Amino acid sequence: MKTIAFVGLGAMGQPMTRALLAAGFAVRGTDVRPAACEALAAAGGIACHTAATAAEDADALLLMVVDAAQAEAALFAGGALNALPPEGIVVLMATCPPAAVAAIAEKVLATGRRFVDAPVSGGVAGATAAKLTIMAAAPDDVFAAVRPVFAALGQRIFHVGDTPGQGAVVKTVNQLLCGAHIAVAAEGLALAEKLGVDGRMLLEVMGGSSAASWMLGDRGPRMLEADPIVTSAIDIFVKDLGIVMQAGRDARAALPMAGLAHQLFLAASGRGEGAADDSQVIRSYRRLNFIG
Amino acid sequence: MKTIAFVGLGAMGQPMTRALLAAGFAVRGTDVRPAACEALAAAGGIACHTAATAAEDADALLLMVVDAAQAEAALFAGGALNALPPEGIVVLMATCPPAAVAAIAEKVLATGRRFVDAPVSGGVAGATAAKLTIMAAAPDDVFAAVRPVFAALGQRIFHVGDTPGQGAVVKTVNQLLCGAHIAVAAEGLALAEKLGVDGRMLLEVMGGSSAASWMLGDRGPRMLEADPIVTSAIDIFVKDLGIVMQAGRDARAALPMAGLAHQLFLAASGRGEGAADDSQVIRSYRRLNFIG
Repeated sequence: MKTIAFVGLGAMGQPMTRALLAAGFAVRGTDVRPAACEALAAAGGIACHTAATAAEDADALLLMVVDAAQAEAALFAGGALNALPPEGIVVLMATCPPAAVAAIAEKVLATGRRFVDAPVSGGVAGATAAKLTIMAAAPDDVFAAVRPVFAALGQRIFHVGDTPGQGAVVKTVNQLLCGAHIAVAAEGLALAEKLGVDGRMLLEVMGGSSAASWMLGDRGPRMLEADPIVTSAIDIFVKDLGIVMQAGRDARAALPMAGLAHQLFLAASGRGEGAADDSQVIRSYRRLNFIG
Repeated sequence: MKTIAFVGLGAMGQPMTRALLAAGFAVRGTDVRPAACEALAAAGGIACHTAATAAEDADALLLMVVDAAQAEAALFAGGALNALPPEGIVVLMATCPPAAVAAIAEKVLATGRRFVDAPVSGGVAGATAAKLTIMAAAPDDVFAAVRPVFAALGQRIFHVGDTPGQGAVVKTVNQLLCGAHIAVAAEGLALAEKLGVDGRMLLEVMGGSSAASWMLGDRGPRMLEADPIVTSAIDIFVKDLGIVMQAGRDARAALPMAGLAHQLFLAASGRGEGAADDSQVIRSYRRLNFIG
């Protein structure tokens, strides 16, 4: 593993490529936005005009694009898969529904190339600090081959299974809990607001009780602010809980708590608040339960 | 504060009275079950046949009964309120809907006696270790008067407001998050099960991620067991989420996530599983989403 092709130099991809460069990898990156390619070149990487060009001579092709459709476009229509050397490994790190990952993997494996399903969590902060959590599914030998790449990007690296799609399942369940926990915290804090109990005091009590959640500690204080800084937007959970619900549809499994949380994020997005901090899903409760 | 009347010597009341005795208070206790009264006497307390007898000469009357109806029965029909000295303080520690607490407080205050709304969390383990969390609402001077009693029972003592019912609101919101978090964890783990991903691995990933919750860490491992030991029963959350929904009805506030979680606990109870560990609400998902 010396040369990494990297498709998708966005908020996550940019710091991830810097981490790979810092660890000594050669990085051939591409993005639809020329400025993103220039930033990679300035950081010591090789900017490529297309995913296919990036894939040439690469040991692994990492995809950190927005969704499964973009991954398919780069790999198949865009020619990156065929440009990748036969012993190359495709590593899909974008958050995608498990069934979509399995379908992409099938096409990749049919060419004789290897595939790792490796979504991440930790956000931009985790990418920047090279402290991502990586949930990888691949046969043992394939996982072992890409491990040095993951070690450059993350701190908690899990080999969650050997079948493509299992990494996506872990990420999906993770996002189910994250999104639902934000909605639950909002529901509780909005009820307290309605009943005249101070939210900061409530956060202090619940932060140390069995009601605690990571999201309550992180998003709770911002739910009490009128217009907090955006650390992650409402529309991110519109997308991620959409993937959760897609996974449920594909598996024919009812996910009522996640489905309800999704509705609350969707309603906020539909009110034009999709770019607001996701803590502001509490506004859906205020609109629902408050006068005026 | 020297003599405490204590009504309700159950799973919580019994260790709480022992903690009060250990701290040097005289405890006059009563319970409908004679064995509970005998246990108090054996521990050094004074067993009383009625709540009214217990209340005589007491500085404070603590109520740790099952619900608001039992508290009303002891205080009003049972004569404990009138038996309590005029300068006595009624301390309601049972989990009750906020409006019910406010109604009880009004009747107590009308007699000139003082009132503290002080629900607890921490369960039997917290009561036994004298490490309860206490969420007390009362005017400053009344709170100060009962603080030594709380110090004997708990470790995290919060003065959450000056109006009776505000303690109940904090406890209600706390239980809203607790109950919903158990349901969310069950939904996620059941989805993983359906999609063939190992639950233990998932708990390891999520325990250190933004998906973490106190309930996931505590109940999650027991969700993976077929018949775990009971630390808290499904019917406790049938009751507690029932109080949450009652608070919502009283305030005319929609609480969709809590309402849905309540349905999942109710269905489990209706299948005859009300005495099972509350982690087994995951069986509602298995029944819903699995074949056979």
